[in-house]
Amino acid sequence: MKSLRSTLILLAVTLAAHTPIQAQDPLPSWNDGKTKESIVEFVAKVTKEGSPDFVPVAERIATFDNDGTLWAEQPMYFQLLFALHRVGVLAPQHPEWKTKEPFASLLKGDVKGALAGGEPAIAQIVVVTHAGMTTAEFEKIVADWIATAKHPKFKRPYTECIYQPMVELLAYLRANGFKTFIVSGGGIEFMRPWTEKVYGVPPEQVVGSSIKTKYEMRDGKPVLMRLPEINFIDDKTGKPVGINQHIGRRPIAAFGNSDGDQQMLEYTQGGGGARLMMLVHHDDAVREFAYGAESKIGTFSDALMAEAKKSNWAVISMKDDWKKIFAFEEK
Amino acid sequence: MKSLRSTLILLAVTLAAHTPIQAQDPLPSWNDGKTKESIVEFVAKVTKEGSPDFVPVAERIATFDNDGTLWAEQPMYFQLLFALHRVGVLAPQHPEWKTKEPFASLLKGDVKGALAGGEPAIAQIVVVTHAGMTTAEFEKIVADWIATAKHPKFKRPYTECIYQPMVELLAYLRANGFKTFIVSGGGIEFMRPWTEKVYGVPPEQVVGSSIKTKYEMRDGKPVLMRLPEINFIDDKTGKPVGINQHIGRRPIAAFGNSDGDQQMLEYTQGGGGARLMMLVHHDDAVREFAYGAESKIGTFSDALMAEAKKSNWAVISMKDDWKKIFAFEEK
Repeated sequence: MKSLRSTLILLAVTLAAHTPIQAQDPLPSWNDGKTKESIVEFVAKVTKEGSPDFVPVAERIATFDNDGTLWAEQPMYFQLLFALHRVGVLAPQHPEWKTKEPFASLLKGDVKGALAGGEPAIAQIVVVTHAGMTTAEFEKIVADWIATAKHPKFKRPYTECIYQPMVELLAYLRANGFKTFIVSGGGIEFMRPWTEKVYGVPPEQVVGSSIKTKYEMRDGKPVLMRLPEINFIDDKTGKPVGINQHIGRRPIAAFGNSDGDQQMLEYTQGGGGARLMMLVHHDDAVREFAYGAESKIGTFSDALMAEAKKSNWAVISMKDDWKKIFAFEEK
Repeated sequence: MKSLRSTLILLAVTLAAHTPIQAQDPLPSWNDGKTKESIVEFVAKVTKEGSPDFVPVAERIATFDNDGTLWAEQPMYFQLLFALHRVGVLAPQHPEWKTKEPFASLLKGDVKGALAGGEPAIAQIVVVTHAGMTTAEFEKIVADWIATAKHPKFKRPYTECIYQPMVELLAYLRANGFKTFIVSGGGIEFMRPWTEKVYGVPPEQVVGSSIKTKYEMRDGKPVLMRLPEINFIDDKTGKPVGINQHIGRRPIAAFGNSDGDQQMLEYTQGGGGARLMMLVHHDDAVREFAYGAESKIGTFSDALMAEAKKSNWAVISMKDDWKKIFAFEEK
């Protein structure tokens, strides 16, 4: 019996290996061309056993920025839109906000005025909306918002404002033995409630900015309280630090879209061997948004463009390289 | 052709599922009894689809302390032995250490005298031995030491002074869809160079204490410098914080051996549902070491023992529950 089973398995496996299967394009939303080729060639190289560029499965680490790389970030970071929404929800408990900036402007609908206070204003908004509850409570607040809120331009849930070509890229890399990580300047706890469902990236593979938490007993139950104090900023030089802290290996592929990603790409390339570094360039005002050096959100400076050219990092043109940007687009 | 292949695969899979296979004990180094049963019953419960205790694969997170839980920690933490070794290696570059404590005592072989300075003395030793180099350089220093140093009592490499029953437990849990993490008070970068080979736990699944790092260019190459500044202490209330920071989910099983693990076990249990909390008790002076409430290293206080009883945490007796402690033992 055992021998019959073994023979059948062997036969089935052999047939499976030799039956020609219609080759399916793993990146159907990418236009054919140099950019797509560079991805496919890189993956072929590092997965080919015996090749000088071969990388064992355990070391196939790929890191992705989130805002502007995996999902949209205009008209402003979605996490900021979440925070603004929370200010509205919490306002009845804070009558003093009516005369206190940045809240007074916000409650009048004057987002620009509220943000005129710069980073201290943003920090105040983040503190009142992101701290003072348990991690489990915050997770629920985020999950509820993300399930119901809609993008002002696309009129779709934010989790549909994700780039279909990048979702395909995540899946393609994983199918080739890669472990895919998000390494974002956004809040780690703001992303974790939905990244697994939306990108196939589980919470333990999300790296991001964080506030401090404190372990304590509340009503006899162990909880982590979210404190109004920055723990870590996962941006610019913080990205290699966060990668080392959470992953403990250098990536062999890294994807970003702004000045905040430069050090992550440098660090990835610095590991030597076959490496893939790519930057998404937002140059499609019709299907998405067009912005770059002049934008405060997702700045892609001329210096970054020069660095990309010098270091041979691929710049992805959303307009030219992506057949489709969002899954919801009409074909 | 396709249909023949499918049929054969289906047939092979069906036969594989129904052919009786000699049941192999996945935990051969554990004596039969209540402790071993509690493990097997827990795993059966959470992996049985349709059962009220079923846990999806993605949520099967198990966390393990390292010192005293996965490997030995006497006569002192192995990382401290590493640090003392490094002081000897570095001494020629530091003539001032001859008259400066805690180094003067250390260099005379008086470890007790050196450590009499308490935490500030230990901090000084850690700073000179763990900071001031790149992460890659530190990784090499650790890898070289761990490949050559031997345990003073067992005369074996430290990576052989690991508990065979726990190695089997790690593999058993993984075979049942668990993701296994180390959550240790020890240094994260001290563990990562060898945990994958020794325990099957990759760097990205290691949580530990850390010092700060700084991203910079050195000779035109991007590196992370290790700074003489504590970043995070992954002990006691720090363990749930570290778990949340790195994993982002509550474990459903947690294993420790000392007061430093109490909060990790509380936090795990606090998630509700089927949970497994276990504490290794060092009660075998013949095969390993016997210590507990009185020990400064790996303290297992009477309060922890009382908490274990109250909360129904299993206490593993090394003497009674483990048929074999180390793989190198004569049978």
